[in-house]
Amino acid sequence: MAGSTTGTILKLTTWGESHGPAIGAVLDGFPAGFDLSEERIQPYLDRRKPGQSAITTARKESDTVEILSGVFEGKTTGTPISLLIRNSDQHSQDYAELADCYRPGHADYTYDKKYGIRDYRGGGRSSARETAARVAAGAIAEEFLKSLGISFLFYTAAIGNVVIDSSRFDASLIGKNPTNMPDEKANEEAVALIEQVRAQKDSVGGMVKGVISGVPAGIGDPVFHRLDAALASAMMGINACKEVGIGDGLFAAYSTGSENNDAFYTDEDGVIRKRTNHAGGILGGISDGSDIVLSCAFKPTPSIAQAQETVYKNGVPKALSIHGRHDPVIVPRAVIVCETMSALTILDAMLVNMSAKADSVRAFYGKDK
Amino acid sequence: MAGSTTGTILKLTTWGESHGPAIGAVLDGFPAGFDLSEERIQPYLDRRKPGQSAITTARKESDTVEILSGVFEGKTTGTPISLLIRNSDQHSQDYAELADCYRPGHADYTYDKKYGIRDYRGGGRSSARETAARVAAGAIAEEFLKSLGISFLFYTAAIGNVVIDSSRFDASLIGKNPTNMPDEKANEEAVALIEQVRAQKDSVGGMVKGVISGVPAGIGDPVFHRLDAALASAMMGINACKEVGIGDGLFAAYSTGSENNDAFYTDEDGVIRKRTNHAGGILGGISDGSDIVLSCAFKPTPSIAQAQETVYKNGVPKALSIHGRHDPVIVPRAVIVCETMSALTILDAMLVNMSAKADSVRAFYGKDK
Amino acid sequence: MAGSTTGTILKLTTWGESHGPAIGAVLDGFPAGFDLSEERIQPYLDRRKPGQSAITTARKESDTVEILSGVFEGKTTGTPISLLIRNSDQHSQDYAELADCYRPGHADYTYDKKYGIRDYRGGGRSSARETAARVAAGAIAEEFLKSLGISFLFYTAAIGNVVIDSSRFDASLIGKNPTNMPDEKANEEAVALIEQVRAQKDSVGGMVKGVISGVPAGIGDPVFHRLDAALASAMMGINACKEVGIGDGLFAAYSTGSENNDAFYTDEDGVIRKRTNHAGGILGGISDGSDIVLSCAFKPTPSIAQAQETVYKNGVPKALSIHGRHDPVIVPRAVIVCETMSALTILDAMLVNMSAKADSVRAFYGKDK
Amino acid sequence: MAGSTTGTILKLTTWGESHGPAIGAVLDGFPAGFDLSEERIQPYLDRRKPGQSAITTARKESDTVEILSGVFEGKTTGTPISLLIRNSDQHSQDYAELADCYRPGHADYTYDKKYGIRDYRGGGRSSARETAARVAAGAIAEEFLKSLGISFLFYTAAIGNVVIDSSRFDASLIGKNPTNMPDEKANEEAVALIEQVRAQKDSVGGMVKGVISGVPAGIGDPVFHRLDAALASAMMGINACKEVGIGDGLFAAYSTGSENNDAFYTDEDGVIRKRTNHAGGILGGISDGSDIVLSCAFKPTPSIAQAQETVYKNGVPKALSIHGRHDPVIVPRAVIVCETMSALTILDAMLVNMSAKADSVRAFYGKDK
Repeated sequence: MAGSTTGTILKLTTWGESHGPAIGAVLDGFPAGFDLSEERIQPYLDRRKPGQSAITTARKESDTVEILSGVFEGKTTGTPISLLIRNSDQHSQDYAELADCYRPGHADYTYDKKYGIRDYRGGGRSSARETAARVAAGAIAEEFLKSLGISFLFYTAAIGNVVIDSSRFDASLIGKNPTNMPDEKANEEAVALIEQVRAQKDSVGGMVKGVISGVPAGIGDPVFHRLDAALASAMMGINACKEVGIGDGLFAAYSTGSENNDAFYTDEDGVIRKRTNHAGGILGGISDGSDIVLSCAFKPTPSIAQAQETVYKNGVPKALSIHGRHDPVIVPRAVIVCETMSALTILDAMLVNMSAKADSVRAFYGKDK
Repeated sequence: MAGSTTGTILKLTTWGESHGPAIGAVLDGFPAGFDLSEERIQPYLDRRKPGQSAITTARKESDTVEILSGVFEGKTTGTPISLLIRNSDQHSQDYAELADCYRPGHADYTYDKKYGIRDYRGGGRSSARETAARVAAGAIAEEFLKSLGISFLFYTAAIGNVVIDSSRFDASLIGKNPTNMPDEKANEEAVALIEQVRAQKDSVGGMVKGVISGVPAGIGDPVFHRLDAALASAMMGINACKEVGIGDGLFAAYSTGSENNDAFYTDEDGVIRKRTNHAGGILGGISDGSDIVLSCAFKPTPSIAQAQETVYKNGVPKALSIHGRHDPVIVPRAVIVCETMSALTILDAMLVNMSAKADSVRAFYGKDK
Repeated sequence: MAGSTTGTILKLTTWGESHGPAIGAVLDGFPAGFDLSEERIQPYLDRRKPGQSAITTARKESDTVEILSGVFEGKTTGTPISLLIRNSDQHSQDYAELADCYRPGHADYTYDKKYGIRDYRGGGRSSARETAARVAAGAIAEEFLKSLGISFLFYTAAIGNVVIDSSRFDASLIGKNPTNMPDEKANEEAVALIEQVRAQKDSVGGMVKGVISGVPAGIGDPVFHRLDAALASAMMGINACKEVGIGDGLFAAYSTGSENNDAFYTDEDGVIRKRTNHAGGILGGISDGSDIVLSCAFKPTPSIAQAQETVYKNGVPKALSIHGRHDPVIVPRAVIVCETMSALTILDAMLVNMSAKADSVRAFYGKDK
Repeated sequence: MAGSTTGTILKLTTWGESHGPAIGAVLDGFPAGFDLSEERIQPYLDRRKPGQSAITTARKESDTVEILSGVFEGKTTGTPISLLIRNSDQHSQDYAELADCYRPGHADYTYDKKYGIRDYRGGGRSSARETAARVAAGAIAEEFLKSLGISFLFYTAAIGNVVIDSSRFDASLIGKNPTNMPDEKANEEAVALIEQVRAQKDSVGGMVKGVISGVPAGIGDPVFHRLDAALASAMMGINACKEVGIGDGLFAAYSTGSENNDAFYTDEDGVIRKRTNHAGGILGGISDGSDIVLSCAFKPTPSIAQAQETVYKNGVPKALSIHGRHDPVIVPRAVIVCETMSALTILDAMLVNMSAKADSVRAFYGKDK
């Protein structure tokens, strides 16, 4: 089934395998008349690309994006925006050993069961490389949302048992230190942890947290296209994500109603606000105007160099040590994927929301209320 | 936007408000020729209905389902199955005070911001009563999956800080004790906790856990319609759900790759299996044939009797004490909602999966491979 | 597959069989705050209902619509609008003979092949009775469009070889005379023709033409959700429709470019207009602000009383004479179905169109251009 | 809105402008394990490409397709198939005059009204060049259907008033003579007519007819995703198409029921068949196993060299003579577009149909009936 398209008004389609000639995305339904060029997208891809520090894979992908359609004289035209990222620096021979066996924690086995065939080189379609196409398209959505005054603060909240401390929170560190942790001490500890697991031919998991500020109240479409449900789908759809929370998330389960409810009050400007934000900016599946807060747990990189028990396709046992170039932790590079996927999700919901009120439709089409 | 329809091949549409004449569901795309009558659905609704024990609301809804279409001489016909549940025992007058003010933790404010109007009686569309329609439709999906040998084990895993102990796990207690906890001791402690929070005019949250056994490998459609992403959307779309995990979920973030990866081996029958199931039965967004394991965190019931700070629609402050009949904890009644929504999600993905291989399509249409 | 839902932002789902307890529709995504009651919908259903004149079936359906959800205190709330029409005056025994044989020109055979089972009473789901649900929902869309200054002129353009003459066009006759032809002379000739085919135990086909005025330029979404493609799908999806044309339609095939192109000019108010409207108001799949013009050809009612060759399900031949109560011509009652389906199609496209320009999105969310 | 994606299980997304660097398509949901290479697609594109005879534009596009993803070692993998066709031989300067004025019969005006901006070079996204991407993707669907024993016979049925005569029907002429008419005499007359209109700086319209044989009974999903409705949408969505008919189409309107109904009988092999095929292979929106027959009327090429009245964007009048290289008739090149779009439509419906019966689902998942 066509699983590589998502969205209602704003539709993203991605395509491509890790070791094919290229990967790409088609972003359709994006509003016309927005300033766009490759220069506006590239910084997002640069935040994702590998080979940037000692703790990421040594694989070097320039990940240069080309816009093939949908932009004319520097502006979007409302037609599909086709984005192309050529693959390079592939070491397909690293994967020859994997053609007939199943890497634990990877999708080799499930792709084989579903499709009966798979491009095993670099994980093929199941490679996290595919997320570069999402980032390229999501960058466009995020740029648009930023032009509306919406801001994004996504970062690494934990690597293994190293958790950031809010008392040391320093947003300026994100994008600068190798872990994308906004806490220098935690960053240092995490780097040490990563070095340690790598030395043990192992890997480690972690958490991404995201805060989106400035989303107006009213976004999201109950009962199934709730904003929290859409965000959960977008986050859980990112490779290696295993849990998604909104606002207090799991902690809400351990709270009482009097602790968890956010009281409403009216501020000095006469605006209705909430005293707290346990809800993470979403009530009943609709944004409430507060910060949207989400968290994503990522499993450890499944590709590890230590010997693992597995089997060949024919069932014969194999002791597998995965060589090649792999990140010992996925989380720092996943931050921008979460951020841009949330931008796509929110922009789609905002476009959809424009016709929620009859008065808005009437006003748009030139009628008085 | 039309947010009340979900699914690809198997589409569920729900409608109705808490205090309108009825609520209902239309389940379209369900395969023809399956034995169906109200008797097959009603037990699922009975597992959800209120007024069953001291710890749920005293509101009595008979929640009797009527099939209005799609079934002929006891079998489904492949056409839309329309399900009707009449509302009764409404105390709409309980809600008159809420017409102009915003209950903390509820969707009153966000519906007002989105639509400019809302049916405030009993929460209207945002009431968890709407989930009865989902349960009625989901029951049909679950019955079908059961006929394929797929089984569902969903239960309350925690209420507040009372967590079940796996050493005392007794599945026979589910559906019998008031909490739906498969642990008699935890059930008793949870009941005591619930009595306590109710005495304090408060409420409490908790966790639902689900295990689905027998789903074949190969279900789910990367990269956006992954089975885990679809389940996350379905669970997060349930009222009061704030976090969703698959398999080890959050704990994966604190693991190493060597701990988290599930080794493959070949059993005595020559079947490829996994030694462990940290992945929760899904790898790369596709089922791997192991149990599918998920967890959902629910916030405490937002309707509490103790005084809360809030505002009227016009911004004037109000001290609100919510009367009426409310569950002090949502979780026991949410179990069947999670269970049936997972059934709908998995059946849709299984129907979609039938055309994944060219050989399957050829065989279906009478051609040799 | 779920074939009974259509639309992007505004989604219509219909359900129900001809001889079940009821038929119905769920209209989701309709803008909130619009005045709505059964009284606003009923006149549309009355235009469709049978038993109104000598040339329609004697079957009497009151076709009374009930709104079960989505309206509060006389206004739409943005939530799904559930519409119920109870069935009555069923003569199911008329159909007992049809349980095991295939009526020529009907869907009995194809439903059996697809689903392996069918509700044969009155055609079940394939009965044109299902279109009453479309009319009920479409009436809401049409009322909304009328409030925006958009008007609908749909009528019978031909019955058999009796074609209306534009020189005698009198719109006031539509809805008054039994054929819905806006030409008294043609109406009389058509009535005579209908009496004649009925006497011959036969039936006859015809044409519906529709003109929709006031649709703003810019509606429709190339390349696949073009307005003409969406209208073609909506019209061809009506029972017995076999051909759909836009503007000059078929005649365009016999024209030259210089004849068929519509010249642009600027009128005295400085508005750009077209000299002619061969295009029928749609260029490149997008409305151009001129009248949208469409035509639909309907086949003759397949249920005829004269003996026809057919077979039983088991292949045994049968000479079939269809009794029961059938319209000798479908067209007069199809007019309102075409009209309301076009309203649903256009309103959905207009809602979708609101986010086409970045400036519109910015303005909606409170930013300057 | 995202208008460039269509399909349910098999989803086609196209992108690209006439004078951008490339156009392309992403075909997602195609079954895995099918032999595919560029060589299998190219002949379809060659049937569409311009510059092949005296009666088409002199524009030379090599229209070479590259597969960028979804194929591994010569077989489809079930992942998105990305197809790229680079643009070449663009004479963008031919279009400079058109930047600010509206060509009659073209989409310049409507794109401007919808999006406020357009790529005017060669018509940009509204150029029929976009259909090359549809042909490339549709070729894959058609190859698959052919492997199931389904065949396609599409041809030019009329150019202006030159209509083919069935008594001279010779299918071998299709693809050989410049008009794609299966009638040598009609071809010669049509060529003469085309030369004549070209000499008059004019253009002419025509008809495409298609016959698809071998589609099994049971395909199509009432009530809105009927096979005829889906085909109507697909055909009307092709540039310049103005009318679509199924089977007898328009002629059904002038028939009686006894003429139009197709009698069922049982042939010597015990198979239920129809004596005639007025219905064009579709009853109640579902295929009946007979040939599927459709017809499409195309308007004349709107780009003509004779002077036409139009206006600049600012409303100032302009006498426009369109130079550049344009086909005097669109129809011969539209044949393959209709053919491949029908293949995509039918394959999608066939994939969707696989889960129509509970027994089929049970059998697929290894359960007895």
